[in-house]
Amino acid sequence: MDKLRIVKVGGNILNHPAVLSDFLDDFSAWDGLKLLVHGGGRKASEVLKAMGIEPVMINGRRVTDEQSLEVVTMVYAGLINKSLITQLQRRGCNAIGLCGADLNIIQAHKRVVKDIDYGFAGDIDRINGSSIQLFFKHQIIPVFCAISHDLNGQLLNTNADTIAAELAIELAKSYEVDLYLCFEKPGVLIDLNDPDSVLIDLNEAQYLAYKEAGVIFEGMIPKMDNAFNALREGVQKVRVCDANALRANSFPGTNLVLS
Amino acid sequence: MDKLRIVKVGGNILNHPAVLSDFLDDFSAWDGLKLLVHGGGRKASEVLKAMGIEPVMINGRRVTDEQSLEVVTMVYAGLINKSLITQLQRRGCNAIGLCGADLNIIQAHKRVVKDIDYGFAGDIDRINGSSIQLFFKHQIIPVFCAISHDLNGQLLNTNADTIAAELAIELAKSYEVDLYLCFEKPGVLIDLNDPDSVLIDLNEAQYLAYKEAGVIFEGMIPKMDNAFNALREGVQKVRVCDANALRANSFPGTNLVLS
Repeated sequence: MDKLRIVKVGGNILNHPAVLSDFLDDFSAWDGLKLLVHGGGRKASEVLKAMGIEPVMINGRRVTDEQSLEVVTMVYAGLINKSLITQLQRRGCNAIGLCGADLNIIQAHKRVVKDIDYGFAGDIDRINGSSIQLFFKHQIIPVFCAISHDLNGQLLNTNADTIAAELAIELAKSYEVDLYLCFEKPGVLIDLNDPDSVLIDLNEAQYLAYKEAGVIFEGMIPKMDNAFNALREGVQKVRVCDANALRANSFPGTNLVLS
Repeated sequence: MDKLRIVKVGGNILNHPAVLSDFLDDFSAWDGLKLLVHGGGRKASEVLKAMGIEPVMINGRRVTDEQSLEVVTMVYAGLINKSLITQLQRRGCNAIGLCGADLNIIQAHKRVVKDIDYGFAGDIDRINGSSIQLFFKHQIIPVFCAISHDLNGQLLNTNADTIAAELAIELAKSYEVDLYLCFEKPGVLIDLNDPDSVLIDLNEAQYLAYKEAGVIFEGMIPKMDNAFNALREGVQKVRVCDANALRANSFPGTNLVLS
């Protein structure tokens, strides 16, 4: 099977032009099949505030009412996605920007309300891998934002780590997939204030213990849940790392393993 | 040559859900090759105002400063484009949403300042027709918003009528192209307040006389200039019509002819 590298880059990187520029240099220079997924929550919250709307987050996930959905769609699929595309094209990387509604690639349903009503949040049902393969066949680099839809005319806000993991799982049927979850920290930290506390390896039992103890918390929990799920479902390698780790051949960061 | 129908739909239609829904029903039902281009200026102006920014228009064209460019990119490429895509997918129309940066399909340069500085407005240099043909080969319907780029990392705001006309001209090399410029009026009117004053046919000499006399003015001028340019450059048919004209087999509206 061909190797495919899927990279997810978080919102804090996107807000720092110099760091982002280095990241895009590195991503563009990679040979072989690759796919980018991006967040953008920080910018979405800025735009919401500029429009007089207070963002609401619970357990690291956004509560998306109708107005927030408009804003995240604008910011993720419009501003951030197309800014990335023009910057990649400038680097000779033949990128195309996509959300889950395009070619019905990411079909989801509105999250069922249990304890918390997350509003227009999407839980993924199905990834259309063949459309993505069409891009790979033509040396086109897909760049996904964190918006899915329900195939009934409703766009849905979906966690970018989840989208990256679900794309990785679907494409692992046809490719040998490595998944890189990149953000502004050097990996999974034991102490958020100490970059030297980065874990080199982390297995699922250790993760669950750290989570139980409150050492790993908030937005890291869905990220890690997605990552271990990807490993269980056939993704070859999952690494949580700094966006600048693409440059180093050694790929520093935290390597996740099932056991 | 295969027939290709290019439809441009204006911002006022996009703001009326019932009219838009009928339009999308009709567009989805069309057999054969088709491509959609959309505006969105009205919504962009609403979002600008919600963010405390006053929109500036000169001669029917937007003056796009840095902040306005962010907003039009969000609204055109994000909110409106992806809303159209999910609504088309719901109707079984396998659509993909694009801006000019995607696959470097629409390359432009920042408009040279003569009398008026339009800011980040793009004048088109080159259309990459082969990428669009790849979509047609796979029964994929491209949906373009009115954003181009300069292949040097800069997105540019570009008139949607111009994008539709330039796509039509490029694709006329490979297809028999009909171009429909759809909006909320029944065609080119002699009296804006009288829908019965619609012209059935209009040639270029008549248009220039109406323009000189001030009967055709403001936003209609770039629309008509683009339309006649398309006819001169090999586009088979150009019609200015109401968005609901897609339904009628007779295609009411104004048929433009060179002479």
